[in-house]
Amino acid sequence: MRALIKHHAGQGLKFVTDRAKPTPGPREVLIRVLKAGICGTDKHIWEWDEWAAGRIPVGIVTGHEFVGIIEEVGAAVTRYKPGLRVSAEGHITAGADYNSRTGNAHIASDTKILGIDRDGIFADYAVVPEENVWPMHPSIPDKIGAVLDPLGNAVHTVMAAGVSAKTVLITGTGIIGLMAVTVAKAAGAGRIFATDMSEKRRMLAKKLGAAEAFDPRDASFVNEVRRACRGEGVDVLLEMSGSPAAYDQGFSALRNGGTAALLGIPAKPPTFNITQHVVFKGATVLGINGRRMFETWYQMEELLLSGKLELDDIITHEFPLEQFEKAHQKMISGEGIKVVMNVNG
Amino acid sequence: MRALIKHHAGQGLKFVTDRAKPTPGPREVLIRVLKAGICGTDKHIWEWDEWAAGRIPVGIVTGHEFVGIIEEVGAAVTRYKPGLRVSAEGHITAGADYNSRTGNAHIASDTKILGIDRDGIFADYAVVPEENVWPMHPSIPDKIGAVLDPLGNAVHTVMAAGVSAKTVLITGTGIIGLMAVTVAKAAGAGRIFATDMSEKRRMLAKKLGAAEAFDPRDASFVNEVRRACRGEGVDVLLEMSGSPAAYDQGFSALRNGGTAALLGIPAKPPTFNITQHVVFKGATVLGINGRRMFETWYQMEELLLSGKLELDDIITHEFPLEQFEKAHQKMISGEGIKVVMNVNG
Amino acid sequence: MRALIKHHAGQGLKFVTDRAKPTPGPREVLIRVLKAGICGTDKHIWEWDEWAAGRIPVGIVTGHEFVGIIEEVGAAVTRYKPGLRVSAEGHITAGADYNSRTGNAHIASDTKILGIDRDGIFADYAVVPEENVWPMHPSIPDKIGAVLDPLGNAVHTVMAAGVSAKTVLITGTGIIGLMAVTVAKAAGAGRIFATDMSEKRRMLAKKLGAAEAFDPRDASFVNEVRRACRGEGVDVLLEMSGSPAAYDQGFSALRNGGTAALLGIPAKPPTFNITQHVVFKGATVLGINGRRMFETWYQMEELLLSGKLELDDIITHEFPLEQFEKAHQKMISGEGIKVVMNVNG
Amino acid sequence: MRALIKHHAGQGLKFVTDRAKPTPGPREVLIRVLKAGICGTDKHIWEWDEWAAGRIPVGIVTGHEFVGIIEEVGAAVTRYKPGLRVSAEGHITAGADYNSRTGNAHIASDTKILGIDRDGIFADYAVVPEENVWPMHPSIPDKIGAVLDPLGNAVHTVMAAGVSAKTVLITGTGIIGLMAVTVAKAAGAGRIFATDMSEKRRMLAKKLGAAEAFDPRDASFVNEVRRACRGEGVDVLLEMSGSPAAYDQGFSALRNGGTAALLGIPAKPPTFNITQHVVFKGATVLGINGRRMFETWYQMEELLLSGKLELDDIITHEFPLEQFEKAHQKMISGEGIKVVMNVNG
Repeated sequence: MRALIKHHAGQGLKFVTDRAKPTPGPREVLIRVLKAGICGTDKHIWEWDEWAAGRIPVGIVTGHEFVGIIEEVGAAVTRYKPGLRVSAEGHITAGADYNSRTGNAHIASDTKILGIDRDGIFADYAVVPEENVWPMHPSIPDKIGAVLDPLGNAVHTVMAAGVSAKTVLITGTGIIGLMAVTVAKAAGAGRIFATDMSEKRRMLAKKLGAAEAFDPRDASFVNEVRRACRGEGVDVLLEMSGSPAAYDQGFSALRNGGTAALLGIPAKPPTFNITQHVVFKGATVLGINGRRMFETWYQMEELLLSGKLELDDIITHEFPLEQFEKAHQKMISGEGIKVVMNVNG
Repeated sequence: MRALIKHHAGQGLKFVTDRAKPTPGPREVLIRVLKAGICGTDKHIWEWDEWAAGRIPVGIVTGHEFVGIIEEVGAAVTRYKPGLRVSAEGHITAGADYNSRTGNAHIASDTKILGIDRDGIFADYAVVPEENVWPMHPSIPDKIGAVLDPLGNAVHTVMAAGVSAKTVLITGTGIIGLMAVTVAKAAGAGRIFATDMSEKRRMLAKKLGAAEAFDPRDASFVNEVRRACRGEGVDVLLEMSGSPAAYDQGFSALRNGGTAALLGIPAKPPTFNITQHVVFKGATVLGINGRRMFETWYQMEELLLSGKLELDDIITHEFPLEQFEKAHQKMISGEGIKVVMNVNG
Repeated sequence: MRALIKHHAGQGLKFVTDRAKPTPGPREVLIRVLKAGICGTDKHIWEWDEWAAGRIPVGIVTGHEFVGIIEEVGAAVTRYKPGLRVSAEGHITAGADYNSRTGNAHIASDTKILGIDRDGIFADYAVVPEENVWPMHPSIPDKIGAVLDPLGNAVHTVMAAGVSAKTVLITGTGIIGLMAVTVAKAAGAGRIFATDMSEKRRMLAKKLGAAEAFDPRDASFVNEVRRACRGEGVDVLLEMSGSPAAYDQGFSALRNGGTAALLGIPAKPPTFNITQHVVFKGATVLGINGRRMFETWYQMEELLLSGKLELDDIITHEFPLEQFEKAHQKMISGEGIKVVMNVNG
Repeated sequence: MRALIKHHAGQGLKFVTDRAKPTPGPREVLIRVLKAGICGTDKHIWEWDEWAAGRIPVGIVTGHEFVGIIEEVGAAVTRYKPGLRVSAEGHITAGADYNSRTGNAHIASDTKILGIDRDGIFADYAVVPEENVWPMHPSIPDKIGAVLDPLGNAVHTVMAAGVSAKTVLITGTGIIGLMAVTVAKAAGAGRIFATDMSEKRRMLAKKLGAAEAFDPRDASFVNEVRRACRGEGVDVLLEMSGSPAAYDQGFSALRNGGTAALLGIPAKPPTFNITQHVVFKGATVLGINGRRMFETWYQMEELLLSGKLELDDIITHEFPLEQFEKAHQKMISGEGIKVVMNVNG
């Protein structure tokens, strides 16, 4: 079959046509991939940075965002049958630890990730455990189905913080930050404020529902946001940049007793005024990892079914699988936002 | 001053022009009333039904929904000054019981209600405790300011249940039920279903954001709603009718583990299949009374500031105070929905 | 193998020695039963009342509370190996509905119960899905391991309501009500009040930690409880009797804004003053069914490991399996509280 | 009257006998002080460190933990009468901001603290707003009443985190850390682990209910704690030391999805691996400041009434007010834990 593989310990991926079609284990399903999204993680894998070099096994098929059709099911699979259109959660666990057994498998202690720790989905076929399958609602198009994984990050962040009737500041409007704007609006946020250094992304944030979008290089926005919110600050901070400056600005703009959900990953441990920003403020800080399995998926489905999410301006490009280099470059350069590859659909 | 008073133990109200202007106590403020809304409760008072006869002291000024301007403040008032445009929470408590001291004064054990237990606001002037004052945001118009009390019932019901990314069934779209439709949509609900016997109100519910509105006399909607929600039922039930049949239908349409918020008041204790509807279902049932003091008011303000609420079709009529009979009749007949009286504005 | 089977559509169970040893499916485990508890449900099955006649398939092995040793695992089982001492959750689901996929499988829409809908564990061997297995901590004795199922009902009720630093009223101290006394105390309740018509059980409730235990036939206890709680009432009601009178008394003793967790099952739909007891009170009512899978099990394990639960006076009798009639009679007569049968241990 | 005043910008306090007795404002009460506790904050004030020099107005009466009798009430006071035995919350707010109006006045934006920003209670008489008064339950002795303020810190930390049926690690068992041990046990924690460099305090932590207490200079305890908790870590971290090392150790010992409540104050902003400790872990971090007004006070009262708190070993010394130097030295030296001064009782 066709596949994109991390063929060597260096830059790039290799397109091959002779990868063996995988065989599902007794509790796994084989899925024919229709469309696949390129994640920010795939950029690290492409560029083979320190993180990638330390984690990715050379030789694996990469990719983890996708929609496809079940082609075959393992002998002990009971829930699904061939022909079903599905996506899947990429976090795979043995199901035996505390979080797996209490509805929080997304933070299980033994997680393996599709396309990172084992073969992924940039290929004609992929194999995932039955437990990870997400049946696609018929009314959700393939193009959206291909990006439920990152959309799920945005939905989980927004829903964990709880934005209903609250003011929200989103620091950093990359792919997931932009998704978070439309998700927060759909999920009932009051006024949404955003920051980003890119004017293009700020414009898009406003188009998607932000009341105002600021360039964080001018820190005066912090007081402007506080003034707009009774002089006290926003109820909710969604930190999506990983920038230490954004941490400081974001928490300064947060009211006492507010909630901060942290999705962004600082490049190294930041020096953080936890006394002022968290302790004295009585703040609640939530670490966000992946998506809840599967509460987030249900929330996402309902947001999509209710027609409230605007994703057209976020999914900027589609390419056939063979043009994987162009596809990856569009995403890496920032020219594209979310880029989708058409594998078999 | 001018006032509407419950002049005798029978139907109607009397308009007088010689009511003594009230004097604020040391911790009270005197407010010049601009506009006032007519509540469903005012219907009971007008018609002098059993409840009204048992509770309302003859001779009081009625009314409790309003916006006005502070005219004078008591000697010990510290927070507000004359000239401020305000509304006020009508639930008055001594502030000494558990709920008053923990952010839940709306369910205090010693509540007195404006226009029910003591003089209300259908008058040129009204007096309320400083603690109950709600400063009006400049961008909220008087007409909306006059109906924050019932809007607050809707907001409290919706926010207590939590509707963000959830499916919602609203049984009964009277004034507060209709407000709940626009509030639920603004607060992030997924698909909203509504029931009402009036076709006019069902049409309005759909205009305000309901995906579908059903006549509850045909019980087949219960299965239709369940089918639309994975065959399992809605996540949230907002019961706003007080009808025993609506209880049965609503809980039947609720999924296992769902949440029901009950605002409607049954005329008498219903016989209710609590085993099937609550215990086996693992449901959460929330009794809703008034509005949280003052969390609901902040939520309401933010929903208004974010421009998401559609109230124009709900506030159907305005009359000068002198036309109080016509105003009350419009509301009582159901021809109007929310009716506002212009007192001094 | 030996087994107790519901041999005919009438009273009693039959002890057989020639039941075929079951074979685990690919995702099931075969467990050699050590000890088994007799549940209140087993009383209904024994007596073949209306509920039992309508639900129990004649011919099945009954029983669902137990501890045992894994003897054999199906081909696709990955988590456990033969030799492990385990108990198991008796609620079996296909794992595909909303609640199963969000940590609430205990209220799944397709639940089958061990010993009720399919063969149970009053036998030398039983088969359960791998998903339902609960590995036993080595420090928990078999006798306790045999009753984790009903103890889990008590733990789920107490933990759902949340009793930490709160006053609690438990109406009805049958098996699970008594367990709830010791669980509530261990889980951090403040003062605990209990009601029961049996003096023996009231004495035991006090021994286990109740500050006071009342005979509900004298309704004056309601005011006594309210007076003890600032005149406002208890924070939490755990309803464990299913008696309509207990509903009225319990909710009357509950403070405004309090939480009621309902585990008891009324014999028929009660007429309930929902306006006074729930709506005006701003109460939260929680339907309790089974035990959370598996959050409750973790909570229960920790309560046991911390040595806070007192179960010795609750598990009153042990009998060998062959004395199943005597064992069932002790429970049915009320002479015993929790009765355990020793199967292979 | 007698009073301890911060007489100059330097070390120590001065005992005077001619301080003018304060006069309550219209909404304030005058309290005759019976007993007063010495807080860790009073150490900073005594030693006149950087924080104290930057905040404390020279000349004020210090102290904020106390019990006393209302002697006189202001003209507009409605809730209390002279003769009532009371304590009081030391955080004073104007009551107009978001948190003050939603049950979270403890994190109001305009808080003034008794004995820090205005005259405190190390004196024969003190004045506090009516709103801040806490009526003492008759069964709580004066000695305990004098330390409800710090006990409230411990209760707020424990209750915010939620410890019922959970494993808990308390890093740092100073005064509040030790109180947190007995509070966590009373509030329903499972096994409690503690760390402290002082062997004496570790012994006391174990006496008060810790399953184990570790010297944090040997970091191997982290793995020991994790092993004791299924190899995953504790459910709850209560950080009470402010030490950066304790942060790292504590979060390393916390399981994925666990909750950390931070009360300790780092001397300067720490460099903190927020990616590993919070984001990837999916942790919830709670900043803890003061005590909830007044939910914490109700919780504290109930814990005391239920007889579960052991404070005798924590309140180590009592001195008459005149021996204030000895009293402060006992606390500052660490020889005493909680030291109480007897003012008029």
